[in-house]
Amino acid sequence: MSIGNPTIAVVGAGAVGSYYGGRLAQHGHDVHFLLRSDYETVRRKGLVIESRDGDFRIAPDAVQAYNDPRRMPRADLVIVTLKSTSNDQFEPLIRPLLNDDTAILTLQNGLGNEDRLAELFGADRVLGGMAFVCINRVAPGVVRHTDFGFVRLGEFSRRDRRDRAEPISAMFNASKVVCEVLDDLRLGRWQKLVWNIPFNGLGATLDLTTDQVIAGDEGLRLVRELMQEVLAAAGADGVELPEELVETNIHYTRSMGAYKTSMQVDRQQARAMEVEAILGEPLRRARAGAVKTPVMEALYRAAVVVDVGVRTRGAAHHR
Amino acid sequence: MSIGNPTIAVVGAGAVGSYYGGRLAQHGHDVHFLLRSDYETVRRKGLVIESRDGDFRIAPDAVQAYNDPRRMPRADLVIVTLKSTSNDQFEPLIRPLLNDDTAILTLQNGLGNEDRLAELFGADRVLGGMAFVCINRVAPGVVRHTDFGFVRLGEFSRRDRRDRAEPISAMFNASKVVCEVLDDLRLGRWQKLVWNIPFNGLGATLDLTTDQVIAGDEGLRLVRELMQEVLAAAGADGVELPEELVETNIHYTRSMGAYKTSMQVDRQQARAMEVEAILGEPLRRARAGAVKTPVMEALYRAAVVVDVGVRTRGAAHHR
Repeated sequence: MSIGNPTIAVVGAGAVGSYYGGRLAQHGHDVHFLLRSDYETVRRKGLVIESRDGDFRIAPDAVQAYNDPRRMPRADLVIVTLKSTSNDQFEPLIRPLLNDDTAILTLQNGLGNEDRLAELFGADRVLGGMAFVCINRVAPGVVRHTDFGFVRLGEFSRRDRRDRAEPISAMFNASKVVCEVLDDLRLGRWQKLVWNIPFNGLGATLDLTTDQVIAGDEGLRLVRELMQEVLAAAGADGVELPEELVETNIHYTRSMGAYKTSMQVDRQQARAMEVEAILGEPLRRARAGAVKTPVMEALYRAAVVVDVGVRTRGAAHHR
Repeated sequence: MSIGNPTIAVVGAGAVGSYYGGRLAQHGHDVHFLLRSDYETVRRKGLVIESRDGDFRIAPDAVQAYNDPRRMPRADLVIVTLKSTSNDQFEPLIRPLLNDDTAILTLQNGLGNEDRLAELFGADRVLGGMAFVCINRVAPGVVRHTDFGFVRLGEFSRRDRRDRAEPISAMFNASKVVCEVLDDLRLGRWQKLVWNIPFNGLGATLDLTTDQVIAGDEGLRLVRELMQEVLAAAGADGVELPEELVETNIHYTRSMGAYKTSMQVDRQQARAMEVEAILGEPLRRARAGAVKTPVMEALYRAAVVVDVGVRTRGAAHHR
């Protein structure tokens, strides 16, 4: 990766891609956005970011937007922010962007994304990162960032090397994004799942905002049980997480107000939900480790029913 | 009960009360409706029933509508169609309507309603009935009846007597409502729960129409497991139901199209859901009978979370 002025490609510029790519572009980096549904709007109107850390805009004549990766320059760094339900598009979307030593950083949700990228493009290229952020796309080309925002990232296979992760982290830190490098990416992944599994899971499956999920005692109990199951599943996957994460996460969630998780937004818009990355893959690792996770199991089943259900005929009818 | 021309009070004229009370009124019976939210509209515009068995209307000058039971005549038959979440209103709403031998027929959902009426007003008065009907209130004073419609009713405590149930049943049958008398009311109650628990339960909790619930394999599996658990719980409660009910109910559900159960409508309108009558009480009987019903257990917990959640602050915000 060229350290001086790297060419950066953001693949899948939804809320997360637009925000982080936007921050890098705002701070002078050479960022190229690969879009799908918002392509025309962004070409015409640029990117608008309403952020609690300061609103900003990338003007139409400044934004480097594309709808075809074959028209994009080869990149030094590819940031993957596709929904994990589109991981079957990795090959056609990412391959055209690679040169011999392009690094690929996935900021996607859940488990299994790095593994898939490694299979296709080689494990050495791959880094993973977790964006701890409350963010929603409120209109085409318009993203609202309401809370948090920090990123943790690490190497997928080469834990000994930090020469790639450090400069990427420094670049984020110089672009108004607090970022830190993890020695153990898997620890970060599981740590984020402690929140994502209960809140994306219950929020999307029950169609409740985060405050609604924990409005009553039973909701709090379910959330705590799910978090305990995630800690156990992580343990079986070789990652020891501290018990305090349960109460810390509940504490932070209370401060978020009525937040809609990305998975809840997806269900409301009858789009595919990230069921496998957020619930299915963690559950399979728990099973592989012979850890009992009955609540996660029930939640996964319900999420599958909802994911199929909201995309069938009744969907339009019943809203 | 006076057989010739009984005075009938319908307590809680939502969709079910308006429809069945309306049918009786349409066929010349002396029906008095106790309403709450729709009272003004019904006084002004009457009752409008759009029914697959023929539309009809009770004109404003013909409808006997009240908003206070103390202004109503004493009744020979009280038909209770309140939501079970309002069962704490039985005493003030029903007591003023009773004479020495008023019969009380509850057409409410779930388990526990007859028991509560019996406690308050004496078991001898009480009959229970199940309305197998697809019906929704589409606007104040306007009810749409889309499918089915038959009623099964029986005595609560006096199974030997049919001299009350038979004339009531005959009255319904003469008013375009197919009705039959059950020897064992509990059998009817559990039989209806075979449908209500999976479809009201999952429909409301996951916010899916009936067709969406069974759109995929996982939904069908969940529904079948829940139905099997209901059969087991009924067995523990002394009621043997035939295994075929599972497939018969799924078959009928497929013919309903995109039906919203009453409990789903309640959640969408942020109103109290009938969680205890439809899920909680059956579950407590299963537990009392030492029957394992893990899916029902998980569904009940999720329904409690939703019931509390949709009525908290976020509700208005997130629709």
